[in-house]
Amino acid sequence: MAQSLPEYMADNRGFVDETLDRFVPGADHEPRLLHEAMRYSLFAGGKRLRPILAIASFEIVSGSNYGVMPLAAALECVHTYSLIHDDLPAMDDDDLRRGKLTSHKKYGEAVAILAGDALITLAFEILSSPEFTRNFPHSRVLAVIRDIALASGSRGLIAGQVWDMWFEGRVADEEAVNRIILNKTGALIRASLTSGARLAGADLAQLKFFSIFGEKLGMAFQIRDDLLDLEGDPERLGKNVRKDGKRGKATHPSLFGADQARNMINNLLSDAAHAIEPLGERADTLRLITEYIGQRMT
Amino acid sequence: MAQSLPEYMADNRGFVDETLDRFVPGADHEPRLLHEAMRYSLFAGGKRLRPILAIASFEIVSGSNYGVMPLAAALECVHTYSLIHDDLPAMDDDDLRRGKLTSHKKYGEAVAILAGDALITLAFEILSSPEFTRNFPHSRVLAVIRDIALASGSRGLIAGQVWDMWFEGRVADEEAVNRIILNKTGALIRASLTSGARLAGADLAQLKFFSIFGEKLGMAFQIRDDLLDLEGDPERLGKNVRKDGKRGKATHPSLFGADQARNMINNLLSDAAHAIEPLGERADTLRLITEYIGQRMT
Repeated sequence: MAQSLPEYMADNRGFVDETLDRFVPGADHEPRLLHEAMRYSLFAGGKRLRPILAIASFEIVSGSNYGVMPLAAALECVHTYSLIHDDLPAMDDDDLRRGKLTSHKKYGEAVAILAGDALITLAFEILSSPEFTRNFPHSRVLAVIRDIALASGSRGLIAGQVWDMWFEGRVADEEAVNRIILNKTGALIRASLTSGARLAGADLAQLKFFSIFGEKLGMAFQIRDDLLDLEGDPERLGKNVRKDGKRGKATHPSLFGADQARNMINNLLSDAAHAIEPLGERADTLRLITEYIGQRMT
Repeated sequence: MAQSLPEYMADNRGFVDETLDRFVPGADHEPRLLHEAMRYSLFAGGKRLRPILAIASFEIVSGSNYGVMPLAAALECVHTYSLIHDDLPAMDDDDLRRGKLTSHKKYGEAVAILAGDALITLAFEILSSPEFTRNFPHSRVLAVIRDIALASGSRGLIAGQVWDMWFEGRVADEEAVNRIILNKTGALIRASLTSGARLAGADLAQLKFFSIFGEKLGMAFQIRDDLLDLEGDPERLGKNVRKDGKRGKATHPSLFGADQARNMINNLLSDAAHAIEPLGERADTLRLITEYIGQRMT
């Protein structure tokens, strides 16, 4: 990586946004309100962390970013769908996300549910589109689709959301909060890294490094998120804070306190960095990303 | 087909249910409530029309049903997810489906939304599973995934649901009601036929026959559904009837009257049968299915 991390992230955000713009029907396509709602949430200023992790792991294995952008865009579609549905009144009932009204506040519940549905479906449309599949062996593409479907499904992301809600107001232990964040956040972050590496043709040993890195990074990212809910600046975060406490959410900071949560983040990030040592200098982007995750304020 | 259509459908329903049972985690897998909710709706006694259409088209092209069952199961997952979400309070707000409480009435809204999410995701997990993909050229599998994603997405099934809701209480013309049912129902029924044919290696000319057949059959199926809402027996249907009128839904029977709607069904089914003439006797199963659709009372 010849650039600084902020430059690298900004450049790739640009590539990802261009790709999303190409794959998501415009507001001039019927049904207009639905496509407008999909774009509203997709282009609400997300960090594009999952796409960037997929691009980075792909580059580490293949030495270039040629052809990876549709995968990056698909991962952002999955992430955005999960945010829209998690914010619904029947779930976390949030009004603000990234400084803007949540989808159901802006478009009503029906359109929000359908915009989420359309985005998870679009992810698989992108991953099976000729623009993507023509550049890779099709067995690799199928392995990538499977990776993302498993991470997003009833034993991944959705399981995490079920447990996150179930433990509201209930007593959770360390095993329980680990299980929540490992699924709610860790699964898709890990799949971002492994799918990028798989697409580039990583062998099983390399995949294992990316998998452990992703799991640890994902957990650290979520604990940092929960800490920011406790201590962060709502202006800067663009969402309401101190929600977890009010709602009795089971989080690491609520269970162990902020100092202990900070230690846990540091330990997870150090485990993450350790996992990719065998990848050598090529993996420097991921090392810089671990530092960024530990320090992020938004 | 050496059997009668009822035998053929019963046998294949058995194969599809076995396949679903294998792919859907049991209620003994965590999160139990989520998997229970997925199974509750999947095994609520559906006709398995979409799976059976995929199996039939696959058999017509390939001469056997070897390997097609995961595709059939995936189509039923997509269909069931769409029913769960369509029944939600924010959408059609239905309490009964197939003689049982709808998912959100039984499990609450949050679990119903997530069970639907998990089922659409599971469809793509099944379609990318080695059990399915090992039996076919991977380019065909990717074409099948694309077919289903497009039919289910924001310019297919989801568009249909958006328009269906939008036209409630509004004046619709024939073009509008055609567009609603073509997307809401026709798109996935057409994709059931084309994906089965694609998987079996159909050429472009054959695909065109299946595509037209599926579109016409799907539209006829939905108009018959709307007629049954107007005239059917709620006991036998297992759901509340006369809902469309109360809610001011734009349907063919409400716009043109029952007699004219019956004519439209007959014309569509005759167009459907015409479209598959070039396939000859091999397509007799589909001919019997058009008769069944015209007469069905549930």
